[in-house]
Amino acid sequence: MKIILDGFGGDNAPVEIVKGAITSVNLLPGVTVAITGDEDKIKQVLSDYGYAGDKIEIIDAKEVISNNESPTVAIRQKKNSSLVVAFDTLNSSDEYVGMISAGSTGAVLTGATLKVGRIKGVFRPAVAPVLPNLKNGKTLLIDAGANVDSKPEYLAQFAIMGSEYMKSMYGTVNPRVGLVSVGTEDHKGNALTHEAFELLKNMKNINFVGNMEARDALSGEYDVLVCDGFVGNTLLKSYEGGIDTLNKVLKEEILKLGLKGKLGYLLLKKAFKNVKRRMNYTTVGGAAFLGVKKLVVKTHGSSNAETIYSCVKQVYDLENAKMIDKMKENLALEESDDKQN
Amino acid sequence: MKIILDGFGGDNAPVEIVKGAITSVNLLPGVTVAITGDEDKIKQVLSDYGYAGDKIEIIDAKEVISNNESPTVAIRQKKNSSLVVAFDTLNSSDEYVGMISAGSTGAVLTGATLKVGRIKGVFRPAVAPVLPNLKNGKTLLIDAGANVDSKPEYLAQFAIMGSEYMKSMYGTVNPRVGLVSVGTEDHKGNALTHEAFELLKNMKNINFVGNMEARDALSGEYDVLVCDGFVGNTLLKSYEGGIDTLNKVLKEEILKLGLKGKLGYLLLKKAFKNVKRRMNYTTVGGAAFLGVKKLVVKTHGSSNAETIYSCVKQVYDLENAKMIDKMKENLALEESDDKQN
Repeated sequence: MKIILDGFGGDNAPVEIVKGAITSVNLLPGVTVAITGDEDKIKQVLSDYGYAGDKIEIIDAKEVISNNESPTVAIRQKKNSSLVVAFDTLNSSDEYVGMISAGSTGAVLTGATLKVGRIKGVFRPAVAPVLPNLKNGKTLLIDAGANVDSKPEYLAQFAIMGSEYMKSMYGTVNPRVGLVSVGTEDHKGNALTHEAFELLKNMKNINFVGNMEARDALSGEYDVLVCDGFVGNTLLKSYEGGIDTLNKVLKEEILKLGLKGKLGYLLLKKAFKNVKRRMNYTTVGGAAFLGVKKLVVKTHGSSNAETIYSCVKQVYDLENAKMIDKMKENLALEESDDKQN
Repeated sequence: MKIILDGFGGDNAPVEIVKGAITSVNLLPGVTVAITGDEDKIKQVLSDYGYAGDKIEIIDAKEVISNNESPTVAIRQKKNSSLVVAFDTLNSSDEYVGMISAGSTGAVLTGATLKVGRIKGVFRPAVAPVLPNLKNGKTLLIDAGANVDSKPEYLAQFAIMGSEYMKSMYGTVNPRVGLVSVGTEDHKGNALTHEAFELLKNMKNINFVGNMEARDALSGEYDVLVCDGFVGNTLLKSYEGGIDTLNKVLKEEILKLGLKGKLGYLLLKKAFKNVKRRMNYTTVGGAAFLGVKKLVVKTHGSSNAETIYSCVKQVYDLENAKMIDKMKENLALEESDDKQN
């Protein structure tokens, strides 16, 4: 199975990307990795870390797309960038099953839509990060920001795509789909969610459990949270903000206690460390971009080798589970149901 | 100054409401309170707490509106409810400057719009809770849920109303207004925020500082956060969710440490207590409903006497600062500016 890494996306490129590639080919049976980017530099890192095997291919690309560039312009003009070359490689053969980038989110999403293309019938692909929930399970949020002016029918498809992801990635049986709203009652919501609610309620291929409130996003009562991208982005960043605010205030208050605070902190150090690990969204891999023809994963800019490996594993698992084929089937099924109704 | 309390709204009515009224008339010079609700029961509580003064008026109302009722139906049909009678009393004379309810949010908002009425020129009144921020200051969020399908011109007015609130309530000079969006760059956002951005940018009476991201809502860099009610509600509940999740995970991890955890917790107890106080949104009073002709404050259902007192103080301060008059002036000014452009 051939998986592509954008070798020059993110803050720690290319070293951590290359190290992640080495780990991936060592740990995942049958996986080979293609890294795009400056060939000499990549070779140097491979040599620095003593890799002399034949499971890593380098595809030369001298340009780099930065976070400050307009995604559309960059994708169209920087044809020799590590990202565009990664997409072109992905398109070049069925052997390449997916690609991963830690680069500009906008450029990855634009590139995936323009270069890889949507699955037939999909209105809009969507970003779907996975969050750790309070029951030590996983909850997927779709859409986290790709579509800031969604229509009800997009949300209906997000529910199918998100459900297929959870089934393929975690073996979740009958993923519980909640619609993000301003209250749990059926009538709560805005014009968009009211219409989406009616669509979701009548879909046979998903397990729609109704409206949910953002405060319960990580309760573990939901496997898939469906919403417009502006709302999903707000939800995600507000969770981060809430957690970050509490952490800062707690630190301030512990420091105020002086020696007593220091001692107490030391006694609870392991607990704080575990909390950090459990609340660290980055440990759940990258955010998949669902609705395009191949597997595309966007991981955060500060990704290290471990994160890159977890993303390769993610693509590997999704490919083994044949997620894209199943997604196509279910999207088509829903469409034919619609026509019969 | 006469302020009205809905005596039978909320989980702790009427006891805590009546106790709050007693505290208010004792502490706030020149304030008298009118409590609506079952006269006998209110008299009983006044007598239980030894109040025999003449600063508390009782206005009999035998019905109660519950959280489960349709707000519109309840406001129209339960004419003898403590909430409707409170609104009718508020309308009956200019002497009554404002009212406070811990009852059904929907009913309070619907009642305020239908009974008290909008300030001339206001498209939509909005709910504006105040949150404690990381710089030990206050940040106002408008709209937190009254208008789930806002138009750009509503958001422009929210900015004026929110700014006037911060000036009147906290003496904030030139309140910094941020527009909740999916990125801080000017071009980030959806159809609604793009149009709102253009309006806000050209307004002379507010200090618009641009787009902001939900993760920075409580950073202290903003005094007023402007957004659609669906988005504001999601932001608020997600912050709550993030804080709540972190608290639960921390508790679990501390418990796992056994005796060591217990000891560490005891040493840090004061810090945890202070964190709880600082992150407790309820200490900043109730959420004002801005854009209606008189002061209307909705406080949470679990409000106790202290909360009720802080809400009466809030109405008292806003009245003394002549907020509604200033809001009217600035809304009119903006309108005449618009016409000139």
